Amino acid sequence: MSEYSVVSKSVPRVDALEKVTGTAKYGADIQLPGMLHGKIVRSKHAHAKILSIDTSEAEKLDGVRAVVTQADVASGRKIFASDKVMYLGEPIAAVAATDADIAEEATDLVKIEYEVLPVVQDVMEAIKSDAPRLHSDATKDGPRRRAITAKLKQLSEESDSEEIRQLNAELDNLEDELYYNISAENHIEAGDVEQGFAESDLVVEDTYVIPRVHQTYMEPHVSVAQVDPSGKVTAWASTQGPFAIRSGIAGNLGIPLDQVNVIATTMGGGFGGRFGVVLTHVPAVLLSQKTGRPVKVQMSREEEFTDGRPAPGCVIKLKTGVTNDGRILARQALGFWDSGSISGASIGSTVRIRGVYNFPHLKVDAYGVHTNKSGTAAYRAPGAPQAIFAGESQLDEIARRLGMDPVEFRLKNMREEGDQVPAGGKEVKVGYKETLTAVADAAGWWNREKGENQGWGVAVGDWTNGAGPGGVYVSLHEDGSARIFHGSIDITGTDTAITQIVAEVLTLPYERVKITRGDTDSAPYATGSGGSVVTFTMGNAAKIAAEDTRARILELAAERLNTDIDNLKLENGEVSLVDADPPKSISLGELAAYSTSRGPIVGKGSFARKPSTPALAAQIAKVEVDRETGKIKVLKMVSSQDVGFAINPMAVEGQIEGGTVQGYAWAIMEEMQYNENGNVNPGFVDYRVPTSADLPTVESVIVEVPAPNGPFGAKGVGEPPITPTLATMANAVVDAVGVRINDLPIKPEKVLNALSNNGK
Amino acid sequence: MSEYSVVSKSVPRVDALEKVTGTAKYGADIQLPGMLHGKIVRSKHAHAKILSIDTSEAEKLDGVRAVVTQADVASGRKIFASDKVMYLGEPIAAVAATDADIAEEATDLVKIEYEVLPVVQDVMEAIKSDAPRLHSDATKDGPRRRAITAKLKQLSEESDSEEIRQLNAELDNLEDELYYNISAENHIEAGDVEQGFAESDLVVEDTYVIPRVHQTYMEPHVSVAQVDPSGKVTAWASTQGPFAIRSGIAGNLGIPLDQVNVIATTMGGGFGGRFGVVLTHVPAVLLSQKTGRPVKVQMSREEEFTDGRPAPGCVIKLKTGVTNDGRILARQALGFWDSGSISGASIGSTVRIRGVYNFPHLKVDAYGVHTNKSGTAAYRAPGAPQAIFAGESQLDEIARRLGMDPVEFRLKNMREEGDQVPAGGKEVKVGYKETLTAVADAAGWWNREKGENQGWGVAVGDWTNGAGPGGVYVSLHEDGSARIFHGSIDITGTDTAITQIVAEVLTLPYERVKITRGDTDSAPYATGSGGSVVTFTMGNAAKIAAEDTRARILELAAERLNTDIDNLKLENGEVSLVDADPPKSISLGELAAYSTSRGPIVGKGSFARKPSTPALAAQIAKVEVDRETGKIKVLKMVSSQDVGFAINPMAVEGQIEGGTVQGYAWAIMEEMQYNENGNVNPGFVDYRVPTSADLPTVESVIVEVPAPNGPFGAKGVGEPPITPTLATMANAVVDAVGVRINDLPIKPEKVLNALSNNGK
Repeated sequence: MSEYSVVSKSVPRVDALEKVTGTAKYGADIQLPGMLHGKIVRSKHAHAKILSIDTSEAEKLDGVRAVVTQADVASGRKIFASDKVMYLGEPIAAVAATDADIAEEATDLVKIEYEVLPVVQDVMEAIKSDAPRLHSDATKDGPRRRAITAKLKQLSEESDSEEIRQLNAELDNLEDELYYNISAENHIEAGDVEQGFAESDLVVEDTYVIPRVHQTYMEPHVSVAQVDPSGKVTAWASTQGPFAIRSGIAGNLGIPLDQVNVIATTMGGGFGGRFGVVLTHVPAVLLSQKTGRPVKVQMSREEEFTDGRPAPGCVIKLKTGVTNDGRILARQALGFWDSGSISGASIGSTVRIRGVYNFPHLKVDAYGVHTNKSGTAAYRAPGAPQAIFAGESQLDEIARRLGMDPVEFRLKNMREEGDQVPAGGKEVKVGYKETLTAVADAAGWWNREKGENQGWGVAVGDWTNGAGPGGVYVSLHEDGSARIFHGSIDITGTDTAITQIVAEVLTLPYERVKITRGDTDSAPYATGSGGSVVTFTMGNAAKIAAEDTRARILELAAERLNTDIDNLKLENGEVSLVDADPPKSISLGELAAYSTSRGPIVGKGSFARKPSTPALAAQIAKVEVDRETGKIKVLKMVSSQDVGFAINPMAVEGQIEGGTVQGYAWAIMEEMQYNENGNVNPGFVDYRVPTSADLPTVESVIVEVPAPNGPFGAKGVGEPPITPTLATMANAVVDAVGVRINDLPIKPEKVLNALSNNGK
Repeated sequence: MSEYSVVSKSVPRVDALEKVTGTAKYGADIQLPGMLHGKIVRSKHAHAKILSIDTSEAEKLDGVRAVVTQADVASGRKIFASDKVMYLGEPIAAVAATDADIAEEATDLVKIEYEVLPVVQDVMEAIKSDAPRLHSDATKDGPRRRAITAKLKQLSEESDSEEIRQLNAELDNLEDELYYNISAENHIEAGDVEQGFAESDLVVEDTYVIPRVHQTYMEPHVSVAQVDPSGKVTAWASTQGPFAIRSGIAGNLGIPLDQVNVIATTMGGGFGGRFGVVLTHVPAVLLSQKTGRPVKVQMSREEEFTDGRPAPGCVIKLKTGVTNDGRILARQALGFWDSGSISGASIGSTVRIRGVYNFPHLKVDAYGVHTNKSGTAAYRAPGAPQAIFAGESQLDEIARRLGMDPVEFRLKNMREEGDQVPAGGKEVKVGYKETLTAVADAAGWWNREKGENQGWGVAVGDWTNGAGPGGVYVSLHEDGSARIFHGSIDITGTDTAITQIVAEVLTLPYERVKITRGDTDSAPYATGSGGSVVTFTMGNAAKIAAEDTRARILELAAERLNTDIDNLKLENGEVSLVDADPPKSISLGELAAYSTSRGPIVGKGSFARKPSTPALAAQIAKVEVDRETGKIKVLKMVSSQDVGFAINPMAVEGQIEGGTVQGYAWAIMEEMQYNENGNVNPGFVDYRVPTSADLPTVESVIVEVPAPNGPFGAKGVGEPPITPTLATMANAVVDAVGVRINDLPIKPEKVLNALSNNGK
């Protein structure tokens, strides 16, 4: 029996009814009088110089109201390609017309002359000296070059000429460690990996290749912008971060921040891919500025694939040293992340190959690499599924070679409170072992059985929710019901969790608390809805606001009941005198009515940062591989997660299931496939996402090791469950048929191919 | 040089641009996908029994989606007439159709059988025993009957049989003091008027007749209602009181308050007439409930006249006793207010015949009287223009008979701080004399000259702003600009005043503070925008919220500058160390950025009641009367007003001008004229409102006697300026041509008629 009345309960989502009945307003539902429709003119080449852009024919088309190009961007910030295109589908212009078909037709009438340039799509090709140069001729040093250069700098001060000579000679021979087309780099080191590997009994080295995948949210990007005669911008945006869109529009177009109002619409999925401002929001504003009319810009599914901002693929070379009794000593990673035409996203996540294990020596060198593809962005625990796939696959391989149980091997090495995190601080109170043990127990790991071609895989993934600034208001209305007002967009039921938190503090039934999202002109700043941050940040802010409201409630009740606050308790929506005989109380409704002479009861809450606590997701899959077709069938999928405290267990289970199946799809199905011309598989016919028929049943196991700073102990729950699944699936396949696929996705043809090569 | 930077300045209104460019969204601008149009089916008779209502033909019309009658009102509350109609235009049913023309056509197809009843339109006829009975047969005692009955009750306890006999005999003869069709009554007494009149040297008695006038706001009533599948109501309403509309819809239809959300649209004028919920809002909700689609119900101008809620007309019999040296001793009023078919509005204002004068004996008996007209509602200082017309006309007449200067006569009798208000408390610090003196000085009263048929009139009117509960939020955004969020509807520039108040407290430029109105689901409770209440209540709440914000600003600044709050000052949007050398400061923008690690800076304010301070408006008009046509031409109109503190002098002048010209129109032009069948002059062809060509130039004089509880000393300014003008005009006409018209409006034909009768 929970000590709580509303939190810890699986109440229905606040938006359940509008979602089920179809009355929720998504971006595409926004219709404004006189609204125009905008379409983006896109590059037909993956790499080319633009020789000329001629918009005159498009402008002459009946119904076309405006064409904008980079020349219309007064700020000078790059919105459209003007001299060079870097990927197929890159925006070059945008057209606004009276309907979407005319706009589409007009995009073809914009005449662009190109000089086609050579294309590079593969990161390992792109870093080579003979690769086409995308942004510059500059190079970056690889790990050994960096080490030598650092050493040389140190030695030149000490003047040890023999060593200097040798190092210079080595440097001259290190041609392959001069990387081209690098967009960003990240280097992390703890201890001395060389020493660690030297002390190891077993050193394993592998290369892992993880493809670029799309977030495949249901709703494509869409914006409606309306610029009024004063230049004030109102933008309806389907986004994870209304305030980020506000500052993005303002910053890109040189408009003062307070001249931009962003009204977020109900979001049809985001997963990290719905923060970008340039895709539709900025073009819509430019077209509205030019036409004086509201303009809607909506991407097609094809445009989502060619010009969305998917998760980066990467190549990770990973090396781990262990002792014969199963102690990890050192791990080293070299990662190349395909950042496409813009700066590298997620490369910092390469460090997650360290996992949740206790070892002294770590070295991580990660590079973002430019290719002729669209840029990338976050996708549910950005970078973690990729790095953890490498880390947990290799650990599984090591356990296999050492002949150790993979769960026991992990438990043996797992960090506990007070342990040193490699290249990090001391571990706080965490639930790593509890969570792994919980999934093993629930899955029947310890007595597992398997038939022919069947296997069991286990993996764990860690993630720590973010935090950001956010303000929340709570007010009590005259019927004694409460209202929450805030500016963060609901993601995965966060509005429901916030509502539960406020109801709990005010001791009101869940149904008596209503939550409303304000636009950026009305709500206090709210952090973006990503990074598993919302329930932690906005939940804390809401809790503070509810407590502020409760304080005022008690103040008024003390006045009304003619007593001190200390003699009062708030329970079941009533303030009553403690130990009064006969009982004496006043309801929140009566107090709210009383407040008509004392002023409405209002509360405020503000929160930004307090340390978050790492969360673990642990998964066990039992699979069966068809040796004839290479197809993998999941017989069992159990997913445990330390959620700190489950404010809404049903919603938490939804997150665990959702993350697990997204990881499952990445492991065996999903892949953005670019050909040599830069074409990608641009739709759900060629890009396979699982249907409900493809999906395993996921059994969720909730573990609760409270986070000291989470509201009621809650941790962010959205991201962790996707992190281990890629490795879980790979590890299960090895256990089933003895082939380890390090190059995702584990498609049937790869399995068949590996089987025919005896697992090589 | 003002001590303030933003308040006391005539900054442009926050909504200036949207009003000027036509982008403001009024109720009529709301268009929703699938929206139906509703029309009201109205009675063709002013008084009749309804024998039957047949909606079948209307329902069959192509495009009609629903017809609702009282039978559809599950709550049982009266929305439509079902057994009897009480006025011409009374709603009997409502129709929703795919367009407004079809809906209009369908209203004619609703077949209603009536049994016509006799009609009564005149209040003095309605109170008689032979008048048709509208609601009941009950009677109310007149003033003398009440006095005798009270005396008899007292005597019967003392058993003085002779006096009892005489009083009973008088009672028997008092047939005309048994009033029928009374809707409400109000009795106020101080001192002993009989004694006062006995001690007087001059007693004057007159009867004043003031017509019913319409508020003639530009925008007719309009609502759009959408009921979602859960029964949740969203109503877009052009209203002065979104929260009143919420509770009105909820109460009338038996819907829980938290299942109704009211989104107020920009208001095209209200003047007190835009609070009613039944006119369009409730029918729109009923039609949406029945059809499942959004429904717009918009009144035509004709419907506004037949079924609006205009200001009540009245008949006031007034008696004043004075000494020969010009001291007022006693005033007695008997008022009959035409409340139409519903309960009496404004009758409590009859007491305003006491004016701002110091006298001991007062008696007021007021009655609301049912007639076969629509109900009435508030109109700018409800009831005050009517009562003050009587009071100030009669004072002028007395001054004339005593041979005293009417300004000096008023100054001699005016109350000052500490004086006893007849039937009231002690007078607080007021500016009555200052305000009257100011207008006299400004108008050149003391050296006034007049040509033939020219005259000068003076009058004063008093009003005290109301107060109500309201909450306001203020937040600081990352660019250092501030946002105000609240739920009250802007009336006469109140959003501008609130914005100035917050900017002043935060020492920000006016342009850096934005204000947004929330709907009733998002904003804390706000009092309705009437009763000159908004700047007082919401301005105070906003000031508290801004001060709360400032406190947090200083707290963060102290942390950043590593000092105590006491060492800091906030000036010009910067917090700086007092007496620091070199100077050390941090801007609000820097602090807002810092707050990303400390939580957004948010503030809250709540206010309800603190005593308000009476405000006086004083006016002087110089007119010329054309003896050939009876037409009155205003040569000069000066209007002074004690506004406490002018937060925005330009806006205050706008209120003074607007109120004065509305009073001017009531005085000489406006009148709802009902014929014996209940027909009224239903449009601007027959109901004359002044055009700009008709209007005098109003010279405004701002007097500032600070209100202790007003924000920065401000008093509510909207209502006072209409209160004296009816009398000002009448008094000027007397001075010009010697005829006093006590029966408004002072139309040319009345002037001519009076002139031909030598002023009788």
